Amino acid sequence: MSVKSWSVKASSCAMRTSNIIRMIMGSGLQWNPEKSRIPLSIGDPTVFGNLKTHQEVVDATVDAVKSFKSNGYTDSSGSPTAREAIAERFSLPEVPLTAADIVITSGCSQALDIATNALCSEGENILLPRPGFPLYATQCDHAGIASKFYNLIPEKNWEVDLKHMDSLVDSKTRAILINNPSNPCGSVYSAEHLRDVLRIAEKHRLPVIADETYLDMVFPPKKFVPCASLGVKVPILSVASLAKLWLVPGWRVGWICIQDLVGGSCLDEVRDAITRLTTIIVGANTIVQGAIPRIMKIPAKWHYDEVTKVVEKHSRMFFDAFKKIDGIRMEMPEGAMYGMMEIEVDKFKDIENDLQFSQMLVKEESVHVLPGSAFLMPNFCRIVTSVPEDRIVEACERIAAFCKRHMK
Amino acid sequence: MSVKSWSVKASSCAMRTSNIIRMIMGSGLQWNPEKSRIPLSIGDPTVFGNLKTHQEVVDATVDAVKSFKSNGYTDSSGSPTAREAIAERFSLPEVPLTAADIVITSGCSQALDIATNALCSEGENILLPRPGFPLYATQCDHAGIASKFYNLIPEKNWEVDLKHMDSLVDSKTRAILINNPSNPCGSVYSAEHLRDVLRIAEKHRLPVIADETYLDMVFPPKKFVPCASLGVKVPILSVASLAKLWLVPGWRVGWICIQDLVGGSCLDEVRDAITRLTTIIVGANTIVQGAIPRIMKIPAKWHYDEVTKVVEKHSRMFFDAFKKIDGIRMEMPEGAMYGMMEIEVDKFKDIENDLQFSQMLVKEESVHVLPGSAFLMPNFCRIVTSVPEDRIVEACERIAAFCKRHMK
Ligand SMILES: Cc1ncc(COP(=O)(O)O)c(C=O)c1O
Ligand SMILES: Cc1ncc(COP(=O)(O)O)c(C=O)c1O
Repeated sequence: MSVKSWSVKASSCAMRTSNIIRMIMGSGLQWNPEKSRIPLSIGDPTVFGNLKTHQEVVDATVDAVKSFKSNGYTDSSGSPTAREAIAERFSLPEVPLTAADIVITSGCSQALDIATNALCSEGENILLPRPGFPLYATQCDHAGIASKFYNLIPEKNWEVDLKHMDSLVDSKTRAILINNPSNPCGSVYSAEHLRDVLRIAEKHRLPVIADETYLDMVFPPKKFVPCASLGVKVPILSVASLAKLWLVPGWRVGWICIQDLVGGSCLDEVRDAITRLTTIIVGANTIVQGAIPRIMKIPAKWHYDEVTKVVEKHSRMFFDAFKKIDGIRMEMPEGAMYGMMEIEVDKFKDIENDLQFSQMLVKEESVHVLPGSAFLMPNFCRIVTSVPEDRIVEACERIAAFCKRHMK
Repeated sequence: MSVKSWSVKASSCAMRTSNIIRMIMGSGLQWNPEKSRIPLSIGDPTVFGNLKTHQEVVDATVDAVKSFKSNGYTDSSGSPTAREAIAERFSLPEVPLTAADIVITSGCSQALDIATNALCSEGENILLPRPGFPLYATQCDHAGIASKFYNLIPEKNWEVDLKHMDSLVDSKTRAILINNPSNPCGSVYSAEHLRDVLRIAEKHRLPVIADETYLDMVFPPKKFVPCASLGVKVPILSVASLAKLWLVPGWRVGWICIQDLVGGSCLDEVRDAITRLTTIIVGANTIVQGAIPRIMKIPAKWHYDEVTKVVEKHSRMFFDAFKKIDGIRMEMPEGAMYGMMEIEVDKFKDIENDLQFSQMLVKEESVHVLPGSAFLMPNFCRIVTSVPEDRIVEACERIAAFCKRHMK
């Protein structure tokens, strides 16, 4: 027997799969043991138990389990009835969808991964928002696709810097990703602005991945405008999931809506590519798929009353409290469940950046906010606005005390 | 506005993602409209409704849904309690497991994809069984990993051709995949044989991916011998899922057991790689994960009485019937839910290979078997042995008539 020793190396594709949040947080958080923990960092509306999914979601899923009819394999791109229900729910007058236009995935995360990998090969690139949801770049790193970041403008409520976006397109660019409503910004784009963005895609003949996972989680008078509704003739892969608006992020069911506004055979190859990619892990959980026809029938009013309105109220609590705190600044969020607070670093005597702000805040006040650097936006921090009211009151008091203590 | 026309190309990684079964079946099956369809082709034990999961699986899952406690995100590598329950269930006296050794995945399919991609980079290779489960090569094609196929020997009940396996290892080989019990062969390896296989891995210092998804679905006196139980000091990633032994393939929950028989820091990098890869789609459905502690407690006796014993009986029905049919030959399956029947092509006047056999059989008799070519094993066809008794009787009669009709 050889005495060669063991050294099992991991693959390069795995090791380049970054996790920027882990990189930034390093060896874990140091909470203040004397104060109750208030994580304003977890983008999960169910963490505190104040927001609960609709009873119909529970009942439909329980029935699917009890029926013994949702146990077997279904098509790797999703069960025909679930796809049809999603198609019906997200059909637009201008862009009707059929089951063939829907691919069910393991969460919006897999929808993004499949959409990106269907369009881009190793060595090519995609345009991503900065600040933006870190998973986009993680997935690109994994696949060897280059991320090129277009700026969002904080002073314009995080609108796309159109000139910058346009300037980034090169011969290797294969797609533009737009996220609206936005994580981490909590911003919502107007029809006009979205149209301007889509025109850049049209000009360069680039398909758009529209991450619309927050859907109608938008505070009036703002409205959610689906990218596909604007009449700009670009091919769109719109991705979303049950995670946020139905309050079941752990269930891991999302979808791609293939919205071919160009027509002809424009997206034929991409459809084939998407189907092929679904075969790698063979689709999403079938009990949830079995419940989807009923889940898709839950009225928009429920989502508004039980989710959006609550998050709006909570966002305003943060907004009002932050107005009175010297050293931080935040616009009123327009949707999703986030706000970006700017850290006016010049005003602090011993805080130089968002990373320090976040670390010291958790250590002293047991309030955790994600540093904007995790979204490539230094000197901002992201807060999650879906947390319960009493936690918001307490968190804002602690942040106020913290800022005061560290003022110049 | 430019008049450049649209042509959205799909990525190379998607387009090289093969689906050999689709390639072979081409434009779909032609069933005989005058005869009821008997698909002996679908590797899903729940298709006919004769095999049903344990009531405890249903109850535990229903309780998880109703609790509202399994709705949020959990760790991308799985919920700590579910990982602990799996660790407990699959701990061996020789190789105890803790939650840290378990990674929960979206089915065994994702477990395989993550294990393969954690170990192999683009341009490197892995040894796969021939005949073997087609998904292995599909996943490798997708990732740009080369598949090198080692032969299984039909005359030796599909044991590994050890010399052949040994001869395939080159400087770019990163892992050996072993599938036991086997899809498509229905074979089960002895401890002695598995030890011989593992010694090849040990000699070349190659980690083993053990696809043990059929687990205890093995007919006495044969026994399922986990690769990790043999005392051969190789690092093993054992993958499995709830799909088959718990009869819920659609639920998409599987796992990787990291069984580090070498010790030291041998698998440290690979563990990290696996964790990174789980972040791409953020894990498996949380309601099933919530039910796993109870699911893992279902006694082995239930699996034996309600699944294995039934499949064994059905396998024997096929075996006994096939013995009397001239033109085909099959060993008695030893486990899993498959049998490989050899087509003695020399005996037929107008059937030249397994593809023709399968196509003509479905067209004339509405009985569908998968051509062995789908598993890279021409002149065999795979049958699924979990189908109900009356379907077996009928299928065997039709196959007998078919063979007789086409005999020389
Ligand atoms: C913008 C955005 N896209 C996608 C996702 C992933 O959604 P899912 O949990 O359905 O995978 C999230 C989750 O936070 C998100 O914020
Ligand atoms: C040998 C083998 N491995 C893996 C799988 C995939 O299992 P899952 O459905 O859990 O992804 C199968 C499914 O048929 C199989 O036969």
